[in-house]
Amino acid sequence: MILHHYMDSSLLLISLLVHFAAMSKSAGCCKSFLHYAFDYETPKTVVIPNLGVGFLFRFTQFLVVVYVVGYVCVVQKAYQETDTVISTVSTKVKGFALTNTSDIGPHFWDVADYVIPPQGDHSFFVLTNMVVTPKQVQSRCPELPSPSSICVDDCDCVEGRSDPRGNGIQTGLCENYSTTVQTCEVLSWCPLEIDTKLPTSPLLAAAENFTVLIKNSITYPKFNFHRRNIMPYITSSYLKKCEFNRSTDPECPIFRLKHIVSEAGEDFQDMAVKGGMLGILIDWSCDLDWWAGNCFPKYSFRRLDNKHPVNNVAPGYNFRFAKYYKTADGEETRTLIKAYGIRFDVIVFGTAGKFSIVPTIVNLGAALSFLSLVPAVADWILVTCTRKRDLYSRHKTAYLNEDADTEVTVGTTYGTQ
Amino acid sequence: MILHHYMDSSLLLISLLVHFAAMSKSAGCCKSFLHYAFDYETPKTVVIPNLGVGFLFRFTQFLVVVYVVGYVCVVQKAYQETDTVISTVSTKVKGFALTNTSDIGPHFWDVADYVIPPQGDHSFFVLTNMVVTPKQVQSRCPELPSPSSICVDDCDCVEGRSDPRGNGIQTGLCENYSTTVQTCEVLSWCPLEIDTKLPTSPLLAAAENFTVLIKNSITYPKFNFHRRNIMPYITSSYLKKCEFNRSTDPECPIFRLKHIVSEAGEDFQDMAVKGGMLGILIDWSCDLDWWAGNCFPKYSFRRLDNKHPVNNVAPGYNFRFAKYYKTADGEETRTLIKAYGIRFDVIVFGTAGKFSIVPTIVNLGAALSFLSLVPAVADWILVTCTRKRDLYSRHKTAYLNEDADTEVTVGTTYGTQ
Amino acid sequence: MILHHYMDSSLLLISLLVHFAAMSKSAGCCKSFLHYAFDYETPKTVVIPNLGVGFLFRFTQFLVVVYVVGYVCVVQKAYQETDTVISTVSTKVKGFALTNTSDIGPHFWDVADYVIPPQGDHSFFVLTNMVVTPKQVQSRCPELPSPSSICVDDCDCVEGRSDPRGNGIQTGLCENYSTTVQTCEVLSWCPLEIDTKLPTSPLLAAAENFTVLIKNSITYPKFNFHRRNIMPYITSSYLKKCEFNRSTDPECPIFRLKHIVSEAGEDFQDMAVKGGMLGILIDWSCDLDWWAGNCFPKYSFRRLDNKHPVNNVAPGYNFRFAKYYKTADGEETRTLIKAYGIRFDVIVFGTAGKFSIVPTIVNLGAALSFLSLVPAVADWILVTCTRKRDLYSRHKTAYLNEDADTEVTVGTTYGTQ
Repeated sequence: MILHHYMDSSLLLISLLVHFAAMSKSAGCCKSFLHYAFDYETPKTVVIPNLGVGFLFRFTQFLVVVYVVGYVCVVQKAYQETDTVISTVSTKVKGFALTNTSDIGPHFWDVADYVIPPQGDHSFFVLTNMVVTPKQVQSRCPELPSPSSICVDDCDCVEGRSDPRGNGIQTGLCENYSTTVQTCEVLSWCPLEIDTKLPTSPLLAAAENFTVLIKNSITYPKFNFHRRNIMPYITSSYLKKCEFNRSTDPECPIFRLKHIVSEAGEDFQDMAVKGGMLGILIDWSCDLDWWAGNCFPKYSFRRLDNKHPVNNVAPGYNFRFAKYYKTADGEETRTLIKAYGIRFDVIVFGTAGKFSIVPTIVNLGAALSFLSLVPAVADWILVTCTRKRDLYSRHKTAYLNEDADTEVTVGTTYGTQ
Repeated sequence: MILHHYMDSSLLLISLLVHFAAMSKSAGCCKSFLHYAFDYETPKTVVIPNLGVGFLFRFTQFLVVVYVVGYVCVVQKAYQETDTVISTVSTKVKGFALTNTSDIGPHFWDVADYVIPPQGDHSFFVLTNMVVTPKQVQSRCPELPSPSSICVDDCDCVEGRSDPRGNGIQTGLCENYSTTVQTCEVLSWCPLEIDTKLPTSPLLAAAENFTVLIKNSITYPKFNFHRRNIMPYITSSYLKKCEFNRSTDPECPIFRLKHIVSEAGEDFQDMAVKGGMLGILIDWSCDLDWWAGNCFPKYSFRRLDNKHPVNNVAPGYNFRFAKYYKTADGEETRTLIKAYGIRFDVIVFGTAGKFSIVPTIVNLGAALSFLSLVPAVADWILVTCTRKRDLYSRHKTAYLNEDADTEVTVGTTYGTQ
Repeated sequence: MILHHYMDSSLLLISLLVHFAAMSKSAGCCKSFLHYAFDYETPKTVVIPNLGVGFLFRFTQFLVVVYVVGYVCVVQKAYQETDTVISTVSTKVKGFALTNTSDIGPHFWDVADYVIPPQGDHSFFVLTNMVVTPKQVQSRCPELPSPSSICVDDCDCVEGRSDPRGNGIQTGLCENYSTTVQTCEVLSWCPLEIDTKLPTSPLLAAAENFTVLIKNSITYPKFNFHRRNIMPYITSSYLKKCEFNRSTDPECPIFRLKHIVSEAGEDFQDMAVKGGMLGILIDWSCDLDWWAGNCFPKYSFRRLDNKHPVNNVAPGYNFRFAKYYKTADGEETRTLIKAYGIRFDVIVFGTAGKFSIVPTIVNLGAALSFLSLVPAVADWILVTCTRKRDLYSRHKTAYLNEDADTEVTVGTTYGTQ
């Protein structure tokens, strides 16, 4: 009995006390104790010259070892301790464009105009389309026509009512919206925004040629490992002219927006009309056991929002913001902008693994347990399936006859009873 | 000895070399080698017909198996590999309100006015109260009265001094703050903000009825599993009119602000006065073993800041921002706004588990080890606590007498010495 | 054979069916079954009075136990289940400064002017230097001189061409940039920004004395553990006057910017010229087993961007934003600001551990497996390296002679063959 031995270890102290009491009067107490504590108890074994069972036994052992070493250690790297990445990202968009619309005439756009927020966080928005409502002031104007706002006379409008789908608080009057339609007057920022007139081709179609520089600095705190996505061997001159390309420039941190969108399987011009969300995923999965050089960022791109209209609300990506002005006489006016565009989210993830003694012990230990199953199986086959099973049983196992105080072989009295 | 066998495996190579040297001269070398490598060595056993110990042995085995299968596997799902969620969030607030204060008269508020930042990130701020200081210009004005700023004449003020608790850099003059108090003049944005006059009821009390739409897209990169919080079977028409409610609409991604705050155990109107931080927690803990359908977001809400005034500094949540204007003659003026409000942080967390062979092996293996403890305990009971322990010891254990080269039974010479 | 027993357990059902069929006709069936299921099979052992091997055996056991208990349990805390921190951060910068430049004259700066974004997220930017280009309007002006923009006459300029390194879209005309240089005229926001004139000493040098209050609220969802970086025993009065210092005030959440930068090993004035990124790392690694009081935030500071110019593009940290104005006649003008400054990223990380039964079982189980290696080693030494190895082999191992149906001792027939 293997484990008998260390069970003894833990039970030793108690047993010792009992035995010491018994042994104290006898001579050679110390020698007895030494023998009690350090005599070595080992199982009696019998060697059975059956090559079949022997081979089966060795082969199964071999399979378990191969499995553990091959799969658990090599493929799954179960001997490694892991840590999750911590990251900071800064982004910088470059590019400009000229638009020419009937509303505002020729207009030049640069980074300060179309990137929101301007400070280049891990998440940045590039404006590609917009509905502009200039010169809004706090005043009264007729509501946009809708089943609930159309009225015939003032009785249809209730002062102070605010329809959640409307644009302001009703004043109780019914006014001419156009020559044919009358709607309830509301208190709001007037004139009201009419966002149904969204251009079908994106305003800033040229945005597809803008580029973004992504700087990413990561840390694996458990391993005190720091790295940047701009590798030490990359030179400034290369960075000034390179552009990311999976096959030719996989390490360049400058991405053309069109390239990002097309790698995500989308069309930039399509997406630019109503906006959307795009993930720039940076995978920093690393094996830190070898030289640190094999820890590189892997870029991939994926659309994050749902473009299917069936189970969607507020499809695309847009938000409203306003630029506030003051007129010469101190009145506040604003230009309301409903901005459509692509929000790029830089998502950094990854797990680093490094050899550590604890997972190694745990995984090897667990594998040893499986090895200990092997003789159990081999024994069972030996006494059950072999031709000479009676012979083997007789020599392996004895059956204690308590009354006669003798052992009888299993083969004749028990095993085949 | 079980493990003897595979120890042999690893020691085989060395032993073989030694033995080959010894065997090389003898005939039948190959047959000898085969027998050496594949003879099967198995422990001799004795069957003891003691139903008590036998039952105890089987019962303990049963307990360990039940424990491992029941607790470790079923309850703790220790056979699973896990991965941490990666998420993107976009939010969109809806609602408008009319305020009527003595300062600025009736004023209409919409999303572009009260949501900061406007682009609807995972963290958004809804303005509920404010201290407005309009028409500030770079100039000189008397400091707000405080023990350190009150003065009698110019000697009390030092040119260029800047008190960290003050509002500007002293010019060295002492000016009339009011008809009764004189304070040092400072260079600053004047007039100075007086933020002690915070309204006791929130300005935008109506904000409690605003709603926010939360779109959340998650990924478990290890399992290549993507999901959105708007499930595929939810229709657009449902999304247009639903509102989150734990019992009736648990899957609707549209939340009324008042509902969020009250689920967090707070009162919206209370919180709106001085502001605060509220976490919208989305738990994406998933079991990906079964059909993927059982991976749903679970929403919960919690106040994140400390509302107890005792160990707090700058209680509530507020920040200052300014709108910059230019007067007709080119001078820059600004409207300083100290904005109080509720910052909502959408916090996405979760761990997904999926069956994997490595944790299964490790956990089963560790359990097997515990099973191997059972016979050690049973043996110890057998030779220590049973009535016929001498009989059993005698047949189980022999004591080698080295001098006589014979074995003696333990019962008579050693065990009960 | 230890594991034989529970192998039997799992094979019992099948075996029982077979045996029941065989036993059904015999008398005493039930008693036979009881004996079959509950007879206790235990290995025969021989006690070998070799103190050397016995001591080696006990000592190796002791080493394994010490290793497992000492290293795996105490040092590595492998008995703990872990969870990753979830955190929210709010920040509030305080301070003001006066600048006096030839461009804009004396100017007073407060929080609303230099903190971007204003709402105090986990990432905030403190402006320290800037290039201001006021009164830009959409118009035409000659491009900045560069090899590609210098021209002699209109033939050198192509209408509609836009150079990615330029500042606008060429109109096709060649205009006087200065009295000596002619460049192509571009359509852009004019006048163009000249960002090469960056002041060599930072504009807001005084920013080093600004302070930032960091409020951090964390959660370990698995353990339902919540905590703030402002401990419950810290009083408001302490918070009003304290300042973080690693030795004297390690728990004060108010940090002087200069202190942060110098702890990161950088010089504030150096960094302020071209900007940079600084990480404020908060480590919430906690041992939740003991009283919760030993779970404290540990602050550290690290520069996140690359200051070495060799493998760098766009060194430092800057971004462009604009303030938009309207002139009296409704024309839009803007002040373009290229803002240089330090972006502070509050990075919260940490893992909490708490006693859990599953990792305890797994780690103890794996350790037990290693203990079971010990007798295998001891046996091998016993029959290989000891002086009386023949004697021990003869009594430990028998060799089955199949033909004679007798066992022969290993010592004479096999082991030393």
